[in-house]
Amino acid sequence: MSAPAQPNLVLIRHGQSEWNRENRFTGWVDVELSAAGVEEAHEAGRRLAAAGVEFDCAWTSVLKRAIHTLWIVLDELDAAWLPVERRWRLNERHYGGLQGLNKAETAARHGDEQVHIWRRSYDIPPPALDDQDPSHPRFDPRYAEAVELDLAPGGESLRDTLERVLPCWEDELAPALREGQRLLIAAHGNSIRALVKHLEQIDNEAISQLNIPTGMPLAYELDGRLDVIAHGYLADEDELAAAAARVAAQGRAAH
Amino acid sequence: MSAPAQPNLVLIRHGQSEWNRENRFTGWVDVELSAAGVEEAHEAGRRLAAAGVEFDCAWTSVLKRAIHTLWIVLDELDAAWLPVERRWRLNERHYGGLQGLNKAETAARHGDEQVHIWRRSYDIPPPALDDQDPSHPRFDPRYAEAVELDLAPGGESLRDTLERVLPCWEDELAPALREGQRLLIAAHGNSIRALVKHLEQIDNEAISQLNIPTGMPLAYELDGRLDVIAHGYLADEDELAAAAARVAAQGRAAH
Repeated sequence: MSAPAQPNLVLIRHGQSEWNRENRFTGWVDVELSAAGVEEAHEAGRRLAAAGVEFDCAWTSVLKRAIHTLWIVLDELDAAWLPVERRWRLNERHYGGLQGLNKAETAARHGDEQVHIWRRSYDIPPPALDDQDPSHPRFDPRYAEAVELDLAPGGESLRDTLERVLPCWEDELAPALREGQRLLIAAHGNSIRALVKHLEQIDNEAISQLNIPTGMPLAYELDGRLDVIAHGYLADEDELAAAAARVAAQGRAAH
Repeated sequence: MSAPAQPNLVLIRHGQSEWNRENRFTGWVDVELSAAGVEEAHEAGRRLAAAGVEFDCAWTSVLKRAIHTLWIVLDELDAAWLPVERRWRLNERHYGGLQGLNKAETAARHGDEQVHIWRRSYDIPPPALDDQDPSHPRFDPRYAEAVELDLAPGGESLRDTLERVLPCWEDELAPALREGQRLLIAAHGNSIRALVKHLEQIDNEAISQLNIPTGMPLAYELDGRLDVIAHGYLADEDELAAAAARVAAQGRAAH
């Protein structure tokens, strides 16, 4: 399907972070975009500006690689003034005890087979972070709401991630769209998978195989019932193929 | 008074913009920070980080020179995840038909005496912007709320500015402070004057003589009734003197 001319929802997955570059599992660790990731964000913003897409509100996670991506995109649109909402529910999948490890370390510690299962299964979580670990979200003020709801994770399966993203859709994003707002969301591979799965009614098996390219605006036109009228990336076939190859290469090492 | 160790309110006036540098009246024209203004923002952030000040929420205007100042400060605090609220009520004074003119042009067009009155009087507004002018706020979506309230200005006296800032204090900032939130506000010379006038009960004559230095965090410790317990700049005497000289030099030309 080709991208709608007047989308009311656009999703952007942040580009390369410092830990993507180092092949390390990142999850909720708050790492910076790499120089390449900063350039991907500018390019995403230029694509939206060239297409003349406008927004009423922007949403992102509480992780700086997504927030900085959003800031750069807003500047390319000359729309730094747009309201921005940050939500922990839009964070990347929490990778538990794997966070910080690179692929070689992980395979050495847990075996290739086990790593494949963690990375590709729908509902098997990684080893949990010890809840006394100082990097556990319960010690971080940005997760105070999650802690209060007893939802601060020490590790998530893909299913866990999708399930905690959905209330943000149901309670906040969907009502805003129904009011007629046009929304921009800068987030992460797995939180965007959650939204795409819901919008396009993709099954549990297929969603873990779906790769979202980084830095490519994914535009939806939704009707009043939030059914998809049209959707597509703001990019041509060659660009998408190049982006998919980049993500697959990253994906072999880490999320 | 020296700066409190644990402020619950910090105000930062953005640094030099491209039009400050060119000696032009700016007002609601959405100009960029200059390279010097970007550096002032980093320095403000480093001062807050060095003092160990923490926040629960940040507020700014809908003008990018204040928003970018805030973004830079948040990054220096490693707190890009903090909620940020943007309000048109925190904008700079609207300089009406003077916006875009430099000091020499303004004096040539209106005379030195008249320019002095516009710049220093409390309640004399500048010549109004024609409401058919495409740069009038009523044509800009970020001012939709102001238009709806019939408050989108085509020019403001200092009094007008103070009066439209106050509802933001009464309705939003003061209640958040009473709830115990610690607030960071990145704004403009005249919207900060409005807050300072209210907090320190400064009279109409004195407030137009009060210069707020750029890029210097002004920290307040307020009690439960929002009376000032302590306040001061996070800077030493020499730094404040240098900043005051810088602002006075800018002040001779434009706001």
